[in-house]
Amino acid sequence: MSSKHPFDIATGLEPSGEGGYHGATSPAYGNLVGPFGGATAATLLRAVLEHEDRSGDPVALTVNFCGGISDGAFEISTKLQRTGKYTQHWSLELIQQGAVRATASIVCGRRKDGFSHHSTKAPEAPEPEACPLMPAAGLMGWVGRYNFRFAEGAPSFAGKAFAEPNDSRSVLWISDLPERQLDYVSLAAMSDAFFLRLLHVRGSMVPMGTVSLSTFFHATPDEIVGQGTTPLLGVAEAKRFHSSFHDQHMELWGRNGNLLATGSQTVWFKD
Amino acid sequence: MSSKHPFDIATGLEPSGEGGYHGATSPAYGNLVGPFGGATAATLLRAVLEHEDRSGDPVALTVNFCGGISDGAFEISTKLQRTGKYTQHWSLELIQQGAVRATASIVCGRRKDGFSHHSTKAPEAPEPEACPLMPAAGLMGWVGRYNFRFAEGAPSFAGKAFAEPNDSRSVLWISDLPERQLDYVSLAAMSDAFFLRLLHVRGSMVPMGTVSLSTFFHATPDEIVGQGTTPLLGVAEAKRFHSSFHDQHMELWGRNGNLLATGSQTVWFKD
Repeated sequence: MSSKHPFDIATGLEPSGEGGYHGATSPAYGNLVGPFGGATAATLLRAVLEHEDRSGDPVALTVNFCGGISDGAFEISTKLQRTGKYTQHWSLELIQQGAVRATASIVCGRRKDGFSHHSTKAPEAPEPEACPLMPAAGLMGWVGRYNFRFAEGAPSFAGKAFAEPNDSRSVLWISDLPERQLDYVSLAAMSDAFFLRLLHVRGSMVPMGTVSLSTFFHATPDEIVGQGTTPLLGVAEAKRFHSSFHDQHMELWGRNGNLLATGSQTVWFKD
Repeated sequence: MSSKHPFDIATGLEPSGEGGYHGATSPAYGNLVGPFGGATAATLLRAVLEHEDRSGDPVALTVNFCGGISDGAFEISTKLQRTGKYTQHWSLELIQQGAVRATASIVCGRRKDGFSHHSTKAPEAPEPEACPLMPAAGLMGWVGRYNFRFAEGAPSFAGKAFAEPNDSRSVLWISDLPERQLDYVSLAAMSDAFFLRLLHVRGSMVPMGTVSLSTFFHATPDEIVGQGTTPLLGVAEAKRFHSSFHDQHMELWGRNGNLLATGSQTVWFKD
């Protein structure tokens, strides 16, 4: 029996030579079909973070979900595109049965203290304990790997379409279950742990999936360590649903009102 | 003498075999050093749009600026990662003197009429004619290729730091100069035509540059054609400036209150 956290098992990698890695999906982070996209994004980030040529901390991550990832083994290939004075750029591919199922670009940066300013504020929300814990029973496996405490805009999984489109915005506390010290890898996963806004706005469950996801990391390593296992305050909203695609945008806030990550994704949906 | 619009010259490509292209930067869209990043993003999108294997309309574009692009010739290589039933995924590299200077991922999608809803509204702004035209004289070449009419949050190019950080938000009308029928390629360029928020917030001019840029296209081809040469209404704001990087987020609105594109970028800055 492993004493590893399920998240570290789900995102664990073994070097396979030439900067590549072997990995495997984990049922603990399963989605309706295949793995939770956030676990895939996190695994791709881990590939760079564990690479011997990596320099700097994560700044930007884009993942494109090209085709369905099946449960089971996969390979990740990495290509270091350039190491500059301030930034380092990587391109990655996740491959199953010889086919590219996801691509990613990752930028690391050499951060330096300097001008620091928040030009927006964390949303108002009651303390985590004052927000009801969302039951995960009967939902996708990965949902049970987080404590979701909605302050605003909890989803309905009743599967019944609303008479009128609902507000797209949610404000919620999110933390790993069991609890786990935050790191960039788990922050990458949480960046994709917001339910698809179509569900919030429309109510009904139709085939849908994230197509492209971009996350920007604002947190410095000391802020990541300082966050510990404290829940993050998340905000998500969409702007437009049209002709098979919609966007959604998120913020993840940490202790002391520090914005740890922002991100956006575009989602395909049927009809 | 060419009767081509300067934008079509700047983003024009010649096939070089095996899905690759030759291109060259254009002084008309020059930045402080090298080309305007929006012209580079637009050129990369054009490479996919002109590719014989492309299917579907642009849905998502991410460009990573790996290293400085010099004025002059470049090569673009394209790799079709996957064509699925609903989406098609591409990876691209822009190469100069044998070095990768930019990478991109582009997703095209087969769009279908269905659920359509705006979950946000266009900002309030006076008509374009009521907003002062920003003088482009003395600024980077590409600035003169657009009419910028700020309704809110015009930049200061005085180069003097503000005593207190200014609001990061701008609302402005933007259109090509000379005027040009909107297409996805020009929409991609306009997605990067918002001045870096550091300038708006801090006032002073320090070395800075976009590192990673992601744009989501919401507009269907009929909306793009219907926009004609009418100015787009843009909104941009930042959320956090910290340890050498800041984010910024943008919306581009078209006729009839349709959101044509949303996007975000992360920007490196010195000190």
